[in-house]
Amino acid sequence: MRIDGLKATALGGGHGLFNTLTALRYLTADVTAVVTVADDGGSSGRLRAELGQIPPGDLRMALAALMGAPAALEDRRRTDPRAAERHERWAQMLQHRFGGYGALAGHPIGNLLLSGLAEMTGDVVAALDQLIDLFDVDGRVLPMANVPLVIEADVSGLESDPRVSRVIRGQVAVATTPGKPRRVRLIPEAPGACQVATEAIRAADVVTLGPGSWFSSVIPHVLVPEQLDALRTTSARKMLFVNLVAEPGETTGFSVERHLHVLHAHASSLRVDDVIVDAASVPAGLEREHLERAADRFGARLRVSDLCVPGTGVHDPAKTAATMAALINEN
Amino acid sequence: MRIDGLKATALGGGHGLFNTLTALRYLTADVTAVVTVADDGGSSGRLRAELGQIPPGDLRMALAALMGAPAALEDRRRTDPRAAERHERWAQMLQHRFGGYGALAGHPIGNLLLSGLAEMTGDVVAALDQLIDLFDVDGRVLPMANVPLVIEADVSGLESDPRVSRVIRGQVAVATTPGKPRRVRLIPEAPGACQVATEAIRAADVVTLGPGSWFSSVIPHVLVPEQLDALRTTSARKMLFVNLVAEPGETTGFSVERHLHVLHAHASSLRVDDVIVDAASVPAGLEREHLERAADRFGARLRVSDLCVPGTGVHDPAKTAATMAALINEN
Repeated sequence: MRIDGLKATALGGGHGLFNTLTALRYLTADVTAVVTVADDGGSSGRLRAELGQIPPGDLRMALAALMGAPAALEDRRRTDPRAAERHERWAQMLQHRFGGYGALAGHPIGNLLLSGLAEMTGDVVAALDQLIDLFDVDGRVLPMANVPLVIEADVSGLESDPRVSRVIRGQVAVATTPGKPRRVRLIPEAPGACQVATEAIRAADVVTLGPGSWFSSVIPHVLVPEQLDALRTTSARKMLFVNLVAEPGETTGFSVERHLHVLHAHASSLRVDDVIVDAASVPAGLEREHLERAADRFGARLRVSDLCVPGTGVHDPAKTAATMAALINEN
Repeated sequence: MRIDGLKATALGGGHGLFNTLTALRYLTADVTAVVTVADDGGSSGRLRAELGQIPPGDLRMALAALMGAPAALEDRRRTDPRAAERHERWAQMLQHRFGGYGALAGHPIGNLLLSGLAEMTGDVVAALDQLIDLFDVDGRVLPMANVPLVIEADVSGLESDPRVSRVIRGQVAVATTPGKPRRVRLIPEAPGACQVATEAIRAADVVTLGPGSWFSSVIPHVLVPEQLDALRTTSARKMLFVNLVAEPGETTGFSVERHLHVLHAHASSLRVDDVIVDAASVPAGLEREHLERAADRFGARLRVSDLCVPGTGVHDPAKTAATMAALINEN
């Protein structure tokens, strides 16, 4: 599936981005991850509160994805089997969480390593570059902003009167609200982008957005003005991946179409080339027509493809890669 | 000063071992550090209590010493300047301590990395080897035992009657006692040695012991029966480095001679080839004769040499290396 010279930039966060990076790695070694930095839960939330830093978790996961992707290990095995072994081991190591009942319990090793380096260098991009250099990883991992962000949402359905909207603040709170988020904002509003990330968007041949937690990992990317500007002006092929299944919590009961409407409501000027959805999640017929119309608001063509690991709600990276390759090659 | 093919094994802990490793690195890249694992203070003490693991601090310092030694960086610079830069940076990084006021404050990055790897692999030797491999460090770092140890001392001078002896337990407590430690024990008593470490002692051309905190970093090495056996039977040249100045706390007011007597009292069967002391810490005359007699109990020759960083109580690694080289070459 390799496409010579392809430069890819993937926007997202969490497991969705992990899968997209794993998929892109089948096509090229030149992959840049641009990662949301609004997490306030788990290890990331604790480190953020303790050190006042950009939460490291999603950045660590992206690094582990680029290092441990099957295609990356396969490349490495051909030229240096010992390095392949080392990459495989360290990709797991970065993700390993401390056990026990103490102050470290639950922290992945990679979060502590990245936070420590960021504290020492005073610069999370420099810290990430040092890890990329140390582990000799192909690709790059960047934050979508240079400061930790807070997500705030207007959520309805939390009171008996469904017209009443309440403000819910924090990624965990938004992601687990029993209400319906309508609109999401970043605090600080309109944060500065990471310049290296906007350059990577502009220089790319392919830019992907999603899948992922829609309100907390996908939409935030279009709320950073310079990054939205880079997305609007890049000549890259832009692919939007919609989630296979609605997530419990923030998008409970969301149809694929509704995912698109909500994104459009947050960035009406955004245009993408392809809206890519899994065949199983959109039955043919009327619903598909609605979807085509929703895609059309982004100037996009709807692409219905088999993307799913059977029996799960998870993208299969190899199938995703094959779909991307077919779209790129059709041009 | 390089001595072709020299295999060196250095026994100790803390800053003393750090300096000896830095010194040995001038002579050879084939250096194995064997490190005390009884620390219960600071970051090591917290990690040990939280995770039930071998305290990582002295192991981390030894790794940083081998990676960041001037001679190691010089070697690397000749063949791969980028690798030299990486080694220099990471040697500092491993030692960097988290700031702030939270759960991580005071933990060096390297301690967390080593503890996490040890937890994941269930084997501190494997964890150390993985770090050596990742950072591409020459040499090896090993614990002197496979289990965390506790130091316990009989200490006099803690009550008004100076003949009364009390038991003081724990490295920090022993190292800072206002009394006089007379005898020190390990708990568990007679712990199993690290087999790779005893092999390294047997295979070495040179084995060093000390300098360092006498009761907590030096004497413990002769209280591990298999390690003492390896020390007694190796054909290596054995060099004992006595501290330049008595440490406040555990060896307050100790003369050089008394250091030797105390070590001998703990391992009367130990023989060494050279007892190496700094010229400035032993005035010529009667005291030197006493010292020669004390060295003689180890079957050793007293070697008086200029070892000190002027105006400090610290060994100068380059001077120490020159002294070692002269002794080895005199053979």
